Amino acid sequence: MTPADRSMLNAFIPGAVELPAAEQALIDRRRAVLGPAYRLFYQRPLHLVRGEDVWLYDADGSRYLDAYNNVVSVGHCHPHVVGAIAAQAATLCTHTRYLADAVVDYAERLLATMPDALGHVMFTCSGSEANDLALRIASDFTDADGVIVTENAYHGTTQLIAGLSPSLGAGVALSPRARVVPAPLHGDGTRFAADVARAIEDLRVAGIRPCALLIDTIFTSDGVAADPAGFLAPAVKAIRSAGGLFIADEVQPGFGRTGAGLWCFARHGLVPDLVTMGKPMGNGYPVAAVAMQPRVVASFGAKARYFNTFGGNSVAIAAAGAVLDVIERQGLVQNAARVGQAFAAALRGTAGLGPVRAAGLMLGVDLLTDAGAPDTERANRLVNRLRDRGILISASGKAGHTLKIRPPLSFGLEHVDLFMDRLATALRSG
Amino acid sequence: MTPADRSMLNAFIPGAVELPAAEQALIDRRRAVLGPAYRLFYQRPLHLVRGEDVWLYDADGSRYLDAYNNVVSVGHCHPHVVGAIAAQAATLCTHTRYLADAVVDYAERLLATMPDALGHVMFTCSGSEANDLALRIASDFTDADGVIVTENAYHGTTQLIAGLSPSLGAGVALSPRARVVPAPLHGDGTRFAADVARAIEDLRVAGIRPCALLIDTIFTSDGVAADPAGFLAPAVKAIRSAGGLFIADEVQPGFGRTGAGLWCFARHGLVPDLVTMGKPMGNGYPVAAVAMQPRVVASFGAKARYFNTFGGNSVAIAAAGAVLDVIERQGLVQNAARVGQAFAAALRGTAGLGPVRAAGLMLGVDLLTDAGAPDTERANRLVNRLRDRGILISASGKAGHTLKIRPPLSFGLEHVDLFMDRLATALRSG
Repeated sequence: MTPADRSMLNAFIPGAVELPAAEQALIDRRRAVLGPAYRLFYQRPLHLVRGEDVWLYDADGSRYLDAYNNVVSVGHCHPHVVGAIAAQAATLCTHTRYLADAVVDYAERLLATMPDALGHVMFTCSGSEANDLALRIASDFTDADGVIVTENAYHGTTQLIAGLSPSLGAGVALSPRARVVPAPLHGDGTRFAADVARAIEDLRVAGIRPCALLIDTIFTSDGVAADPAGFLAPAVKAIRSAGGLFIADEVQPGFGRTGAGLWCFARHGLVPDLVTMGKPMGNGYPVAAVAMQPRVVASFGAKARYFNTFGGNSVAIAAAGAVLDVIERQGLVQNAARVGQAFAAALRGTAGLGPVRAAGLMLGVDLLTDAGAPDTERANRLVNRLRDRGILISASGKAGHTLKIRPPLSFGLEHVDLFMDRLATALRSG
Repeated sequence: MTPADRSMLNAFIPGAVELPAAEQALIDRRRAVLGPAYRLFYQRPLHLVRGEDVWLYDADGSRYLDAYNNVVSVGHCHPHVVGAIAAQAATLCTHTRYLADAVVDYAERLLATMPDALGHVMFTCSGSEANDLALRIASDFTDADGVIVTENAYHGTTQLIAGLSPSLGAGVALSPRARVVPAPLHGDGTRFAADVARAIEDLRVAGIRPCALLIDTIFTSDGVAADPAGFLAPAVKAIRSAGGLFIADEVQPGFGRTGAGLWCFARHGLVPDLVTMGKPMGNGYPVAAVAMQPRVVASFGAKARYFNTFGGNSVAIAAAGAVLDVIERQGLVQNAARVGQAFAAALRGTAGLGPVRAAGLMLGVDLLTDAGAPDTERANRLVNRLRDRGILISASGKAGHTLKIRPPLSFGLEHVDLFMDRLATALRSG
């Protein structure tokens, strides 16, 4: 087991469990061509061949309830999105240096879901590219470099953003321009703001001026921090008082997951300077974006043109538009609120689980020892037992003791029942 | 006109030409939502609605011969690729942390097109992400930072890679770890190697050890440098003697464009340490990759796991596989060689054009004044006149006086004839 294996939650550890020969052969071939930096999930990796709504199917025909994948947010292989992708791919797939109605229509539609102050949007391929671009713009606007992130944050994989993603582990050097603060898991906004202020001071001592507070607005990889809504406001005030910007990373909570409108920052009553989004935006089609207040990009745009060959291409925009259609037509924000509330209540009523932190269909559940300490081993065991019982989730948090539950937004109450039934069985077995 | 407008070739300059009211209204709406960093092509931007093979169609039903777009390398909306995307999107779209046959099959197939020493491949969404990842790996392996690029290179748009892309203009600061060398436009390998050696020395003086020579192997944005094949070898030897790696950026020349196998580095008889690829890989579907010699990623992979949510997802791999199918079945490498040769010969036989540098369907044509100086104005005028006559190309090079011609690989001799006919008319009008 390498250091990187240890730092990744729910990673498959080669050799730890004996696997069927055919699976082991595929894993060996995969290791040979993809190399040592790739990881699989679970002690017994899942070999998937098909997906439909909240279900995934493996090569043996077994079915899994997907309570983990937040990319396929409107459900695996949603016919409306698939149809939009297929139709547009057959018509035209080109980039943003030609005029097109669709990208302008979509940009207007997306910005209409946000506060008026967020007036521009720029398209990328991935959340990593979106965060990278947001920071390029923020650095230009503030003429400063310092970035504050939470201590188990994940924001992406470019050189710049990997250095601002402590959850990647000690093998990826934290950027010298980064300062980390504990995530406000208990919703203590005053303390979080004090931590941010301390980080700003620490930057100053090092001669680094503050550029931005960059946070996943629901702190997914820190272990989920949702309530009380509003707790983020003092920290945002602190970074702004110091001349820095607030970048809301909505890659995970965005597009309705929290059940309170499309954007988690709105739950907190905030208007970010920049908003990044990605994963669920095209339900799997690679598309991501940065929305921003026009003032922050005025100078950047005048001197540093931006082009991204695939970012916001014709098909990406068709997929993204179809996702908004489905969210509206199927009432998925409302569904996330309703089902998420029932899900959280059921989890809270289950013996053997620790505190539940949740908004909509983003749920974090701590596993604690009898003495109240983080029980990382049991969390990992439970994730794998659930997988063996046909339920997919993963773990989160600095200690890895938080169950991370974030199903497609089409998850229904019947799926919650099935989940809770299997969870009870898994918990009974230890 | 902003500095960024001036640094971009063939950029639409708002207000320079009067446009139809409907087009102007769309441009205004676009500017309002996409903001100031976006640019359009041409004095009269193209409003596209449909593409088919080598043809693009605008909103008025006019047809354009596409001799510019190298992303849709097997032709706009190729039915085999569109079919593969549609079928896979309807079946499963998920990531590389689940086991799947297709990504392993594709990786094996892709690596089989390269020298045996290139044993691993990692998937990203864009060429920018591929170059960013290649440099993260190269920096880890060499424990060094210095990167040598050519003076009008373009490698991508992340913070790291934008700083290594001088073609973005003075508004984007060059990275302190970068050194630029003139592109070897005349194929003088000895001189290019001497320039690289001088850059290495310059890095050393600044206390920066050399990490990599990063080059587009056909120097697309420097103005196209193709012959004599082999001229790159001395420069590669120079970087390796200094402990640095050779990163072949095949984002533009790769996948058969040069008509001499799939990879331009192979024309030069070289085996790179890392190879990046992107644009044509999925014929418009966002997919890109880094291939590498296993030794360079061993340490990186052990400590720094890599995951890219969309990179190499199920649909990306289906698209990429379909592209390889089409290249093979339609003999597109051979077609690029045959048609490219005829195209270059026709251009060389045309009065009023300067030197032609070309390999396959990547062609650069200098426009010179009577005194032999770069004629940037005439190049820009010609690009726009051709657009008005239904032919799409752009310009390239540090001085912007090189016509950049790189049509889909399905371009036929009849399209060359049409191109030459329209070019003659455009040249006659000045």
